[in-house]
Amino acid sequence: MNSTNFHIPNLTIIGVGLIGGSLALALKAAGVVGEVVGAGPGGVDLEKALALGIVDRITDDLAASVRQADLVFLATPVLALASVAAVIMPHLKPGAILTDGGSVKGEVVTAIEPLLRPDVEFVPGHPIAGTEKSGAEAAFATLYQNRRCILTPTARTGADALEQVRRMWQAAGCEVVAMEVAKHDRILAAISHLPHMVAYSLVNAVGSDDRYEENILAYSAGGFRDFTRIASSDPTMWRDIALTNREALLEMMERFEKFFAELKEDVRTGDGQAMFEFFLRSKQSRDAIL
Amino acid sequence: MNSTNFHIPNLTIIGVGLIGGSLALALKAAGVVGEVVGAGPGGVDLEKALALGIVDRITDDLAASVRQADLVFLATPVLALASVAAVIMPHLKPGAILTDGGSVKGEVVTAIEPLLRPDVEFVPGHPIAGTEKSGAEAAFATLYQNRRCILTPTARTGADALEQVRRMWQAAGCEVVAMEVAKHDRILAAISHLPHMVAYSLVNAVGSDDRYEENILAYSAGGFRDFTRIASSDPTMWRDIALTNREALLEMMERFEKFFAELKEDVRTGDGQAMFEFFLRSKQSRDAIL
Repeated sequence: MNSTNFHIPNLTIIGVGLIGGSLALALKAAGVVGEVVGAGPGGVDLEKALALGIVDRITDDLAASVRQADLVFLATPVLALASVAAVIMPHLKPGAILTDGGSVKGEVVTAIEPLLRPDVEFVPGHPIAGTEKSGAEAAFATLYQNRRCILTPTARTGADALEQVRRMWQAAGCEVVAMEVAKHDRILAAISHLPHMVAYSLVNAVGSDDRYEENILAYSAGGFRDFTRIASSDPTMWRDIALTNREALLEMMERFEKFFAELKEDVRTGDGQAMFEFFLRSKQSRDAIL
Repeated sequence: MNSTNFHIPNLTIIGVGLIGGSLALALKAAGVVGEVVGAGPGGVDLEKALALGIVDRITDDLAASVRQADLVFLATPVLALASVAAVIMPHLKPGAILTDGGSVKGEVVTAIEPLLRPDVEFVPGHPIAGTEKSGAEAAFATLYQNRRCILTPTARTGADALEQVRRMWQAAGCEVVAMEVAKHDRILAAISHLPHMVAYSLVNAVGSDDRYEENILAYSAGGFRDFTRIASSDPTMWRDIALTNREALLEMMERFEKFFAELKEDVRTGDGQAMFEFFLRSKQSRDAIL
């Protein structure tokens, strides 16, 4: 890799699902990658990834998968990241760069940095992209187009490694932003983790209403379907996120509860003016990001 | 109108916005309507509706607008329906059919039925369709394709009038279902009114987090945008719905709060297994309506 003509001769992706697979496809489409090795415990997904041309070679031997890698992208569920990092650490090339795509950065950084060899770089990252689908067959080359990728360098992160990972995500189509670990986790708790908790709760609340012979969800029109699409997201992934970003998530869940309780009180007392202002304020915030 | 060849010679639509305008366009496309008159207090919207070919004639004189009408469709915000019905009642033709598209049926029926002349029919209805947009310029002919329309006939509703309104919505593309007023209001509280309250609260909760220099909503990816789209819905319309379906809505808001509190407790205690089961149950319900 050099700084004028960005190229990754050997890339290893551990966890070739939607996130890892889409990065491989995007970098291949951009022509900035040599051989892409797919690794991980997911036997079926690896075979699919190979068959779909997402990766060039697969292996379930994590150690072997990284020996030639210039850059290793960890795209497993959040709670598996550190154990994977521990397994591969002795087998990385000197100068190799490790990066990840975990949706939570604080616990990941805390768990991985103590494991790092002095001659290995680690750049914590998080591409803010995804769909409710998961698995290699859900991957597509344009997932990251016009999405933001947040990198959260620490005191341990080398400037050149940061720049390489920044260029990788730019090549994949992202606008790359750097910020502190804690700020990332608070922002994601607000715009992503809280909404998922709300969506899961909403579908369970509505689905628990068993007074009807028919499935009342079948009456739902576009609004409810779009609104609850994220409740189809992978339960394991979201369990890991909720466990690892607990503090920031709890704060946002409590904030949401206060607003919801305020609105419920307006409904209970029939305060139309207060409701109107509540709805209008929300509409204005929402319209501003259209 | 006769039962073999369905046709509405003179249709008046009061409130030519997304709902009223789209019905006019759908019935014109289906070739089942003669002259369509647009009426209501909304001067700008009426001019737009005429310019866009949604209606053939417009007037802000409600009495004049209904004198020739075989069928009158009321598509104003819910709280305006009864006052409009009161104004037009003396001017309807004998045998005219009045119907509405209000999202709440209990209060509408209670308010309108006492106003009815013996020679006028009323068929309460609700097409479950819409977008977060409002106004005549948002109307389109296919809004109702493959949507459900719920009719809530009462003891006062004549069988022939019910059949005519059923055929009108079928011509517009709907699958028509009849059910009791109270059941309609409970189901809609669950699948539509509650989700809107949740979306408005979510956007306000996230938007109130002012610790950041930048607008953190700008970091949001597809999930949050889709999820909060309904928070852009018309505040007046939703104030009216919350005021008129208060009891059923409050019950659902409390049900949602219980589920959300259960999940928050799982997050607080770090109960990964309980979270996983909560998320999985939601995913299974949601996937069943894909």
